[in-house]
Amino acid sequence: MKTRAAVAFEAGKPLEVVEVDLEGPKSGEVLVEMKATGICHTDEFTLSGADPEGAFPAILGHEGAGVVVEVGPDVKDLKVGDHVIPLYTPECRECEYCLNPKTNLCQKIRSTQGQGVMPDGTSRFSYKGEKLLHYMGCSTFSNYSVLPEISLAKVRSDAPFDKICYIGCGVTTGLGAVMFTAKVEPNSTAVVFGLGGIGLNVVQGLRMVGARQIVGVDMNPAKEAMARQFGMTDFVNPNDIKGDLTGHLVELTGGGADYSFECIGNTNVMRTALECCHKGWGESIIIGVAPAGAEIATRPFQLVTGRSWRGSAFGGARGRTDVPKIVDMYMDGRIDIDSLITHTMPLDDINKGFDLMHAGESIRSVVLY
Amino acid sequence: MKTRAAVAFEAGKPLEVVEVDLEGPKSGEVLVEMKATGICHTDEFTLSGADPEGAFPAILGHEGAGVVVEVGPDVKDLKVGDHVIPLYTPECRECEYCLNPKTNLCQKIRSTQGQGVMPDGTSRFSYKGEKLLHYMGCSTFSNYSVLPEISLAKVRSDAPFDKICYIGCGVTTGLGAVMFTAKVEPNSTAVVFGLGGIGLNVVQGLRMVGARQIVGVDMNPAKEAMARQFGMTDFVNPNDIKGDLTGHLVELTGGGADYSFECIGNTNVMRTALECCHKGWGESIIIGVAPAGAEIATRPFQLVTGRSWRGSAFGGARGRTDVPKIVDMYMDGRIDIDSLITHTMPLDDINKGFDLMHAGESIRSVVLY
Repeated sequence: MKTRAAVAFEAGKPLEVVEVDLEGPKSGEVLVEMKATGICHTDEFTLSGADPEGAFPAILGHEGAGVVVEVGPDVKDLKVGDHVIPLYTPECRECEYCLNPKTNLCQKIRSTQGQGVMPDGTSRFSYKGEKLLHYMGCSTFSNYSVLPEISLAKVRSDAPFDKICYIGCGVTTGLGAVMFTAKVEPNSTAVVFGLGGIGLNVVQGLRMVGARQIVGVDMNPAKEAMARQFGMTDFVNPNDIKGDLTGHLVELTGGGADYSFECIGNTNVMRTALECCHKGWGESIIIGVAPAGAEIATRPFQLVTGRSWRGSAFGGARGRTDVPKIVDMYMDGRIDIDSLITHTMPLDDINKGFDLMHAGESIRSVVLY
Repeated sequence: MKTRAAVAFEAGKPLEVVEVDLEGPKSGEVLVEMKATGICHTDEFTLSGADPEGAFPAILGHEGAGVVVEVGPDVKDLKVGDHVIPLYTPECRECEYCLNPKTNLCQKIRSTQGQGVMPDGTSRFSYKGEKLLHYMGCSTFSNYSVLPEISLAKVRSDAPFDKICYIGCGVTTGLGAVMFTAKVEPNSTAVVFGLGGIGLNVVQGLRMVGARQIVGVDMNPAKEAMARQFGMTDFVNPNDIKGDLTGHLVELTGGGADYSFECIGNTNVMRTALECCHKGWGESIIIGVAPAGAEIATRPFQLVTGRSWRGSAFGGARGRTDVPKIVDMYMDGRIDIDSLITHTMPLDDINKGFDLMHAGESIRSVVLY
């Protein structure tokens, strides 16, 4: 079949919206009509050429929502008409990782997904007879896409695509880091570094689980108002702090934070995030993606005296199991997504979404098909 | 009263065994007759002058066992004749730390203990009218010592002092890191870096909790035999490995260790210990004490992909609660202490114990009073 898609032909160039060829689903695969897709920093990271694993030409996008329009042979749990959210972290429920309750990092199709192809080693996309690569197992910048069944979360059909697409990445990454990775307890104190899309979702996750103090740290004072709306109780602008930021945060939290979250990808901030944690029990969770080769450092005394240093990918969520629950949280009004989606646009204007991101004007732009 | 004690008059000098003056116990304090004390690397670290917080003159020693001979006013849970093990990490059961189940780092008397004095700010020891400092709240290199009640674990009276004194530090530090800090599950895989006294206790802790693979790493091939006796299943001498040690350990453990333990205090080894852990769920526990100012480093990707970096002090044990349980483990034959105590000596020969440590000839030397 033919489908319209925004294709990344080359690193550093704008996307081009063209009509591409799409093969139908093979065994265990599903054809999805995308209804909406968010534009995430990770798409930008790859498009820019900075991603050492980025390969071209490819159809980017990994934060979508849509409807099943065809299922291939051997598909067990999805049928035509089901509403779905694509998962860049699949959940096969049978690999060593899925069977270990400590992790969400399903490895079933990791190597082929990393190479931009389907589990059988081939691509379903082509343009003028040339192969186009899939991206993160999703390729939501195409109006229609083929995905493995294990890479799709079935969600309730009354949830609006233009909002729940954001659950495919940013919302789950932030909320999940609180709920699934850190398992933050009610009455905890927390510090959140970086109040962009991920940070705001960490903040509202902390509010939802009953944290008593939620400190937000950002150098941009314009972030304060929205973060307070999402549950932040204290705002700290490092530029306004005389002296040591770590010491300031330890004092503000009455001895250190029970939990801290780094949502920027800056290794110096990661150190501050660890060291502002409470002696004895503070846990610091790294969410942000650091530049290739960058390293974190601290004195081991920080750990021996009871702090722990961890990380979170896709919020520790098991997508097929947990994403439908997060859709429920949104539909029940326990979390806010609407305020975070600051811009929408048709596919033809997708490059404007990247421009808004560069300009720092959007929290999330969503393409509506 | 008078008591014989090995006094550290100056950094870098041998201890001098002399008769010192000891005041009786004040409110909340207990006079203990030491029956035995181990000589630990931490005593050596302080005596050498390398410990930035070391102060002199002082009576070192923190790994003892003895009998209560007098109790001061307001002592609630101990009486004359009780057998006790001194605790350099006390357990007051009422501070913010003791009331938090995530930590064992009671802070009740931390500042005075760090200054070498009793909780009222004074010392009970003097020599020729000059004050002598306490050490780690214990000073077990004195035949009689005064300690806060919260710094004493009451233990069963049929346990031999010359063995259970080692539970006051080394045994608990190693076993506890497995049981209390990491909470290692049966059938886990683990790598232990450094097969000295702490490492061997980690190894036997792993065996006790049912680990299926226990890899020991040490550059000294002479350590292999004893470690196998304690439960090690695989020995790795880094000098015998061509290529990357981390990669070798990941392969040996079938994808990485579920748990690793650094028992040396070398920040490069700490990195290897983290990075040889299994993606998704591996936990690395730092036990060793690094040189002042040394830093650990890694790429944050190691954490974001599911490894966690933690530390353990006194094995995460709450001394008054957990040390009696470890004495039971020893008396029941579930752990071996006897093989680790390679030398004993009278107090007059205590400096020989330090010499044996320097020469690498002892695992543990114990002074018998």
